[in-house]
Amino acid sequence: MNSSLETDAFVQEIISAIQSVVGIKSVALHEPEFDGNEWEYTKECLDTNFVSSVGKYVDKFERSLEDYTGSKHAIAVSNGTSALHISLLLAGVEQGDEVLVPALTFVATANAIIYCGAEPHFVDSEADSLGIDPEKLRTYLHSSTTLIAGQCRNRISGKVIRAIVPMHMFGHPSKICELLDVCMEFGITMVEDAAESLGSFYSDKHTGTFGLLGTLSFNGNKTITTGGGGAILTNDPELAKRAKHLTTTAKVPHKWQYVHDEVGYNYRLPNLNAALGCAQLENIESKISRKRVLFELYQDAFSSMSGVSILREPTGSRSNYWLQTILLDSKKISARNQILERTNEIGISTRPAWDLLSTLRPYKDFPSMDLVQATELASRVVNLPSSPQLAKAKR
Amino acid sequence: MNSSLETDAFVQEIISAIQSVVGIKSVALHEPEFDGNEWEYTKECLDTNFVSSVGKYVDKFERSLEDYTGSKHAIAVSNGTSALHISLLLAGVEQGDEVLVPALTFVATANAIIYCGAEPHFVDSEADSLGIDPEKLRTYLHSSTTLIAGQCRNRISGKVIRAIVPMHMFGHPSKICELLDVCMEFGITMVEDAAESLGSFYSDKHTGTFGLLGTLSFNGNKTITTGGGGAILTNDPELAKRAKHLTTTAKVPHKWQYVHDEVGYNYRLPNLNAALGCAQLENIESKISRKRVLFELYQDAFSSMSGVSILREPTGSRSNYWLQTILLDSKKISARNQILERTNEIGISTRPAWDLLSTLRPYKDFPSMDLVQATELASRVVNLPSSPQLAKAKR
Repeated sequence: MNSSLETDAFVQEIISAIQSVVGIKSVALHEPEFDGNEWEYTKECLDTNFVSSVGKYVDKFERSLEDYTGSKHAIAVSNGTSALHISLLLAGVEQGDEVLVPALTFVATANAIIYCGAEPHFVDSEADSLGIDPEKLRTYLHSSTTLIAGQCRNRISGKVIRAIVPMHMFGHPSKICELLDVCMEFGITMVEDAAESLGSFYSDKHTGTFGLLGTLSFNGNKTITTGGGGAILTNDPELAKRAKHLTTTAKVPHKWQYVHDEVGYNYRLPNLNAALGCAQLENIESKISRKRVLFELYQDAFSSMSGVSILREPTGSRSNYWLQTILLDSKKISARNQILERTNEIGISTRPAWDLLSTLRPYKDFPSMDLVQATELASRVVNLPSSPQLAKAKR
Repeated sequence: MNSSLETDAFVQEIISAIQSVVGIKSVALHEPEFDGNEWEYTKECLDTNFVSSVGKYVDKFERSLEDYTGSKHAIAVSNGTSALHISLLLAGVEQGDEVLVPALTFVATANAIIYCGAEPHFVDSEADSLGIDPEKLRTYLHSSTTLIAGQCRNRISGKVIRAIVPMHMFGHPSKICELLDVCMEFGITMVEDAAESLGSFYSDKHTGTFGLLGTLSFNGNKTITTGGGGAILTNDPELAKRAKHLTTTAKVPHKWQYVHDEVGYNYRLPNLNAALGCAQLENIESKISRKRVLFELYQDAFSSMSGVSILREPTGSRSNYWLQTILLDSKKISARNQILERTNEIGISTRPAWDLLSTLRPYKDFPSMDLVQATELASRVVNLPSSPQLAKAKR
């Protein structure tokens, strides 16, 4: 950036492009939309007194998630973080293990690893999907780990690298098949973080169904919401049973007796929130098709601009376009904070990528490969307002 | 019990007493009641799109809980278990500590201790309130621990006994002031489990406000419900701030940046559930007054029966009578399972006390004082249908 005047003009150009899509008004980053059976189902919970751990909607939501994702089993839980925590436990992650995780992801993943008594080990990303770079990972594991009795050990720490948690960033499927190949080669279990990618498919297979376990989130800012909520996906009936047991205080089923056979968790999704989820899921394809229209609108708006490009779904995938994303050219990085400041000032909610986990105070001393790509990508990302409702605003 | 015929007659007498109060029909152990502004507030969340972590009801619910309990600060969280977990962390419980906990309580307390990397140390109960016996505890601590530099150390394990978690069982206030005296004497921090006792006061002070921190639960079976939910109470502004920070992923406030300064948790209560809580709390005194009437109805019904007594609030307290409780005489203990079987068979939901935590597989090897009273009490308790709605059924 040559001058502040030039930066001002660039920032103004970006604001104009956004406003050409969303209109000149305050606009949220991602707003939920309740235009289906949300009222009916939640009211039924209140009318029948089934708002909590007992009720038909938890079961219905789980079966609907199975139908939609093609996963053999779905277990509804309190949020995406608890889904990750239990999935890591079920993947065998334990005290003293390391778990590979992109430095460029939300902090919940690293937290969930810590809850298991394990340590995050940060890996780099690639620019197509913003997910983990499989080739770079393979090279790194070859140079930094040793396979002993089928277990991948960090040569420096001596610890077992038990699992990896790829994340489908902003809804765009990662290079998940290549990552699975790396997992096979090094004996690492995959827990797939599909918190942002409900409705995103890679080679016609739903994200979150490639790993041994996958996780979803239904937080308020997601494509569909239950207020707060999440789910665990798995094709393994035993793991599914264990997931249900562990997330419901590990109570042994009995008509009246209270026996718990292991240390469990209270990670239940209340029936009230599941009711909302059922109604939301009925309309997910309408939301996604409008989010895809919104992408096209943004694409048109930014097509003639230099210094910035819009992130599109990787080849061979169908993205839910959860968060619309522009990537600043490397030479425009210095304008990022001004873009974020100015847009938020005038009521256009935008946000940057997360600060790399490896730079956060609680995580700066954990193992990491070089993070050249993730560092650069993190400084180039700006997420734009992404609600499906905005597609109606086409002008 | 002399014969099975005699037991049959005793069981039948108990069933008749219950039916004289609740009528001859299926009846739940504790059903929620939504007869206030529940639908209005929930609908408002849907209509305004604020169902998740942002919205006015979380704040409103917290301020209402402060008003009602007299606690200076209330922090709404996802459930009672997460409230206990964070309260223990804030009380300084860490890896390698021991925490005193009644053997006669719900498993969540022991689980929360394990989440902190600490160990439960089980203590005995007394018959007035079913809570921890303060005198027995004092004697035990004198004989089994040593005060070193103000820290109470278990002489056998050498570990620091950092905290104690008294619980107000079935809503009846424990001998909390005597327990506080013991805490003072031995340098032990109190985290008060008021999961069952919202609306219960000891010497006109709300349960949960005696300890450094207190916890509430709004599970579906509680006096008021948010579907799933809980709260942390404290008078300490710094602890309150830390509780909010830790339960909301430890994100440093910023308009758009994502920085987290410690390992946090996703223990937020969604706005949708908080809305339900606001409406429920508005009517809590009506619910409690009917639950107290229900107690009187049961008291009348059981007054002429031998072999069984009804548990009443301890002197000097006002109980919410969350769960109505009969105590079988020691010589009638052998009839307990038959009472539970028969009542549940005919649709009258009853339940026993929890199996002592010290007998559960995950907890059988942790330190414990002798549990003579808790063992006996656990075998004598039967909880009866306790919904406030049942008080209307007076006949």
